[in-house]
Amino acid sequence: MNRISGERESTGDGDPETGDQGRRRFSPDAVVLPVLRGLAQVDFMPSALCGVFFAVALFAAGWQYGLAGLAGSAAATLTAAVWGVRADRVTAGLEGFNGCLVALAAVVFLGPGHLSSWLFALGGAVAVAVVTSALVTLLGTWELPTLTLPFCMVASAMTIAAPEFERLWHGRPEIAAFAQSAEGPTTLDWGDLWRAFFADFGQIFFMPQWYVGLLFLAGIFVASRPAALSAALGSVVGIVAAWALGSPAADVRSGLLGYNAVLVSIALTAVFVVASGWSVAYAVIGSAASTGVTGALTDVFAPMGGHTLTWPFVLITMLFLLAVPALPRLQRN
Amino acid sequence: MNRISGERESTGDGDPETGDQGRRRFSPDAVVLPVLRGLAQVDFMPSALCGVFFAVALFAAGWQYGLAGLAGSAAATLTAAVWGVRADRVTAGLEGFNGCLVALAAVVFLGPGHLSSWLFALGGAVAVAVVTSALVTLLGTWELPTLTLPFCMVASAMTIAAPEFERLWHGRPEIAAFAQSAEGPTTLDWGDLWRAFFADFGQIFFMPQWYVGLLFLAGIFVASRPAALSAALGSVVGIVAAWALGSPAADVRSGLLGYNAVLVSIALTAVFVVASGWSVAYAVIGSAASTGVTGALTDVFAPMGGHTLTWPFVLITMLFLLAVPALPRLQRN
Amino acid sequence: MNRISGERESTGDGDPETGDQGRRRFSPDAVVLPVLRGLAQVDFMPSALCGVFFAVALFAAGWQYGLAGLAGSAAATLTAAVWGVRADRVTAGLEGFNGCLVALAAVVFLGPGHLSSWLFALGGAVAVAVVTSALVTLLGTWELPTLTLPFCMVASAMTIAAPEFERLWHGRPEIAAFAQSAEGPTTLDWGDLWRAFFADFGQIFFMPQWYVGLLFLAGIFVASRPAALSAALGSVVGIVAAWALGSPAADVRSGLLGYNAVLVSIALTAVFVVASGWSVAYAVIGSAASTGVTGALTDVFAPMGGHTLTWPFVLITMLFLLAVPALPRLQRN
Repeated sequence: MNRISGERESTGDGDPETGDQGRRRFSPDAVVLPVLRGLAQVDFMPSALCGVFFAVALFAAGWQYGLAGLAGSAAATLTAAVWGVRADRVTAGLEGFNGCLVALAAVVFLGPGHLSSWLFALGGAVAVAVVTSALVTLLGTWELPTLTLPFCMVASAMTIAAPEFERLWHGRPEIAAFAQSAEGPTTLDWGDLWRAFFADFGQIFFMPQWYVGLLFLAGIFVASRPAALSAALGSVVGIVAAWALGSPAADVRSGLLGYNAVLVSIALTAVFVVASGWSVAYAVIGSAASTGVTGALTDVFAPMGGHTLTWPFVLITMLFLLAVPALPRLQRN
Repeated sequence: MNRISGERESTGDGDPETGDQGRRRFSPDAVVLPVLRGLAQVDFMPSALCGVFFAVALFAAGWQYGLAGLAGSAAATLTAAVWGVRADRVTAGLEGFNGCLVALAAVVFLGPGHLSSWLFALGGAVAVAVVTSALVTLLGTWELPTLTLPFCMVASAMTIAAPEFERLWHGRPEIAAFAQSAEGPTTLDWGDLWRAFFADFGQIFFMPQWYVGLLFLAGIFVASRPAALSAALGSVVGIVAAWALGSPAADVRSGLLGYNAVLVSIALTAVFVVASGWSVAYAVIGSAASTGVTGALTDVFAPMGGHTLTWPFVLITMLFLLAVPALPRLQRN
Repeated sequence: MNRISGERESTGDGDPETGDQGRRRFSPDAVVLPVLRGLAQVDFMPSALCGVFFAVALFAAGWQYGLAGLAGSAAATLTAAVWGVRADRVTAGLEGFNGCLVALAAVVFLGPGHLSSWLFALGGAVAVAVVTSALVTLLGTWELPTLTLPFCMVASAMTIAAPEFERLWHGRPEIAAFAQSAEGPTTLDWGDLWRAFFADFGQIFFMPQWYVGLLFLAGIFVASRPAALSAALGSVVGIVAAWALGSPAADVRSGLLGYNAVLVSIALTAVFVVASGWSVAYAVIGSAASTGVTGALTDVFAPMGGHTLTWPFVLITMLFLLAVPALPRLQRN
């Protein structure tokens, strides 16, 4: 359970062949486990138990979010299976995690009270399955994982497009605007700090509540203690970087400046780079950089009415992984 | 004539060697046919007869547009020939179609009444020849065709840059603005539907008139009946998707929501993917997705004063072609 | 001294092994020369003497700029050395030039009077070392040099992000805004022309003064006369293109329309393409195109509060180098 295979291997709980036969005989395991792993793979964990924790966390934030996350993971996984994507990827949840996030984004940003948001969420989950396959081919040239890039692409397109479509936007005003300079107190007290620490885990799934974040962290912990440690380090680095740069305390407290740092840190120490003192230092640089990039993308997306999503994590992690072959202190996993 | 070679083969009407010698002896065929095929290749048809229909369609919309389309195709084809690009690409019209569109964009968006627009159109057609060669190298890594990406890049740069240059912009106000939420009735009556169906073909060349679109469709039909069928399917899917999402009827009627769907559908069924039930389903998903992406790019380009062009077609088709190797239900042509 | 190795070879003044040993014994040569070459490599010159001229030019514009340029080159070079980047790249200054520009950008755009700008400059120089290694891997797929792309990426992120961070932005208003159409006289008199010619060299380092530009040109001249000639040609083409398109004379005079043309011209004639009549014609087309792209990127970056930097040079040079294999009239160096 402590072994992390991230995006590159099958899960190990059952060989892919069996999984494939299982799907044909409709074993519930072969249907339910990949969907739960789809939730867990958002944080690189190929563990269905971790997925249970993540589902509980989403339901704790609101039943609509739990439902959307599971439905999105299921829709993308099913689409991939129907079109014949390799069984080991499907079984490991690697085809589901982007769908989970796309469906959540649709429900969060377009409103859970509209049927249109739910239909669009399912359409987005189908589209993200194609985009995932496309990026596996494209990024394979440099042995890069897709990370959440499929989600970022589809969810950005969805949320930026929504105001152009009346049956999705329901007459709300357009949200495109120039970003404004940051304002408000930047001092963090103890209550800000611990709330920010946990919220950094929840914001990966758009949830700002500290107790939701705690459940996500618990899910990572049961799947892999080293990954939980890396994630905690990333959260701390993100908070320190945000404080040093002068982010408003309210944003830090709700996890907006640290959720990318969490993902960067897991990716660069526990999943794609061989763990070492150098890789921890590398992850610290990358996590801090992701907080800076978060600020930049806020200003980039504001005039088009878009959201930052996990673009900072994707951009920083891909750059830092691409650099590894040129840096002999580090080694790819 | 019913054979479609798209972007990857010579035309078959005469081998490249002969074509090359012909150019040296200045046979009118070797000069005129590639320019006409340049028009036809916008819709993937390597057929000079189809190019004649397309030229007639452009002249029916306005003599300036017919002239610009032919001049742009000629300028880009000539530039490619002078710099020594492979004769089979030149002969098949593959070096001309982006030039045709760039020159049209310059005349349409900067105004046909200014000499500066025409000079800029020719400069753009020269530039697009270089960009085409660059993208052949770049995209060849994944065996992707250039599609109209060279046109999109050059025409976006041209139209976004124009307000910065007084001899091009002639004192007009800057057009950069935030996109506004869609407004107006979304119900489509019979008159909207058939006008939209044909306008989807005309808008590929920036023309909103239904009878111009009809001439374009006729051109595709004489070159390839399967392609005409695919194109018609794409137009229908684009209109249905736009209606379902809630686009204003006025935009649907003038073809703005469906021209990318037409191109996606031809590309994914008749040209780059082996035709099958699966590939038709794939094309339907892609065509619908391109309508959604059209909405997104409207909001992306508005604050910089840019236009959507055929970016949705290019992005969706490239993603969907990249995904094919991971999807065993489909096969590249 | 007249030999230009650009981004692909070691400098020749001392083999890499010796340089490496030298660093361990702390020979001042092995520390100081790469930092100076880092300045010179901004204009592709692997020459420490040229770097001395460039440092003098920066100090002539203001001691803060001289200091920032040297510190940025040193910080990025040191970072690369610590993480074990190949010694020949470090010694040749290829790891320093993007750091030099990043630090300059931080001090110029965030203000030299704030300690925060200097700390951010150093952080940016560290980050640019990672980004450089990443792009060496990524672009190596097509044998493309990184050019100043690492600088453009990091400096764009930095300058766009800055208003989001109170300890960097110090309460100034956000600068994001729609670009405005160009206004003001476009006629260039003799005084405009010669000032523009020299300012084109200074603006590569953000400096608008003609005498600073003259010092930069002198530095290129002592390192390579052919490169100085190419650079002069690029400056002239940039000015002619800006005049023909109708740029405001004030912008032309301060070098804003020609600095990218200078870099494109050196790259396409003297460094990466074998010199010939064809390559000169190619460089002229590319230099003129870079002036057009400068206008486009002004409008692209304005709504996000970004700067054009050397993005036009990077985009045009990469496209023109990618096209070379398809154009038999040209040959890569």
